[in-house]
Amino acid sequence: MKPDKLEGKALHIRVKDEIKQAIKSGEYRINTKLPTEADFCEMFDVSRTTVRTALNQLHIEGYVYKIQGSGTYVADNKVKQSLTATVDNFNTQLQLQGKSPSIKVTNLLVIPSDDFISRGLGLDKGAPVNKLERVRFADDIPIQYEVSYLPWADTPGLNRDACEVSLYSLIRDDYQLMIKKTVEQIEIILADPYTAQVLEIEEGSPCFMIETDAYLENGKKIEYSKAYFRGDKANFIIERSY
Amino acid sequence: MKPDKLEGKALHIRVKDEIKQAIKSGEYRINTKLPTEADFCEMFDVSRTTVRTALNQLHIEGYVYKIQGSGTYVADNKVKQSLTATVDNFNTQLQLQGKSPSIKVTNLLVIPSDDFISRGLGLDKGAPVNKLERVRFADDIPIQYEVSYLPWADTPGLNRDACEVSLYSLIRDDYQLMIKKTVEQIEIILADPYTAQVLEIEEGSPCFMIETDAYLENGKKIEYSKAYFRGDKANFIIERSY
Repeated sequence: MKPDKLEGKALHIRVKDEIKQAIKSGEYRINTKLPTEADFCEMFDVSRTTVRTALNQLHIEGYVYKIQGSGTYVADNKVKQSLTATVDNFNTQLQLQGKSPSIKVTNLLVIPSDDFISRGLGLDKGAPVNKLERVRFADDIPIQYEVSYLPWADTPGLNRDACEVSLYSLIRDDYQLMIKKTVEQIEIILADPYTAQVLEIEEGSPCFMIETDAYLENGKKIEYSKAYFRGDKANFIIERSY
Repeated sequence: MKPDKLEGKALHIRVKDEIKQAIKSGEYRINTKLPTEADFCEMFDVSRTTVRTALNQLHIEGYVYKIQGSGTYVADNKVKQSLTATVDNFNTQLQLQGKSPSIKVTNLLVIPSDDFISRGLGLDKGAPVNKLERVRFADDIPIQYEVSYLPWADTPGLNRDACEVSLYSLIRDDYQLMIKKTVEQIEIILADPYTAQVLEIEEGSPCFMIETDAYLENGKKIEYSKAYFRGDKANFIIERSY
């Protein structure tokens, strides 16, 4: 049998993978302290630098967190979100994972659309739009920051409180508008200072950015949004049947 | 009208967004040179540091590239891939974007499954599996590195050449196995040295990692894979109808 090329990968990657597996299998449990760097050195027969590099990467990827002067702990699981289930069941999805969901409106105002928004929504420049900023939390940890734009003509007097439950239900119930199709685009971006502050992460941390266009039955665009998800906390699931 | 909070965001973010918009709108075209740092300073009335920070972030996000001693150029568009279309139409999707697709098998061997693989495929530890490593290219640029594991008992003598066309077609044609369902999980990870080398990016660059479980009609798992996509090059699209 040929030697396995990946077996030859850098030591810190192997150490990282071993620790990650032990976390995933539940051998190291959430919010418990990991063995010390010295323990890991002995366990894997590697240098302190190797262990540190492995732990640092696990930190950035969201598997562990550090408490100054105490040690490294196992982080809570990533928040799983299905991208193939029905709209806006963020709350249900989180509850199924034993997490307590909440949505907070941080800003809601009417603004004239600039080049960017008018292009995004297919409106004339200057046409009024609702600009809605929301933050979603799982167990009080901010995991998603979202800015939505909706044509004001279609959604006048958007109810701020209802936006903290479900925007799509609100659109359906208050304006009798049925969303027929959404198109989402997922990219990786680096957190700008404002997003970093809202999501309580370091500036420049990698985040998922999901840009959504939502359409009504007649093809009209009813929402254009940009949502930023903490890269260390988000895990998206897509199921396909054939 | 209340002042718009986001208008107060850091200067380099505004500069970055302006340049990004100009690239997206086609004002600055692919592979053409951007204005110099000094030009941008004058254009936006900001400091050299601000322009540099903006350009650096655009570089990491994949919108521009730098040529030593020459300047900053507009990068080719990200490679869009639908996550809701049918399986394995990577080639078709890329061709529609005017890019030339190719798949290269970098490794194909039979190995005994370790803890990790046996868990992933629901096999006994030690059971033989095909380990298939492939790199996908768009116009000769590596955009995806993928490691697939398939139970050897179901896929003996996997045809290496056919894996460079379509693994799922091969499974169907050579073994009469129909894939009925896939479950994909998307996370952000940082490129390890080996993945970085294969994808020609810097170690630690943020990448999409898609973990796939593929099931046959009878519920048996036929493939477990991990695919790494360059964060600066990938853009996933998800369409949902209601």
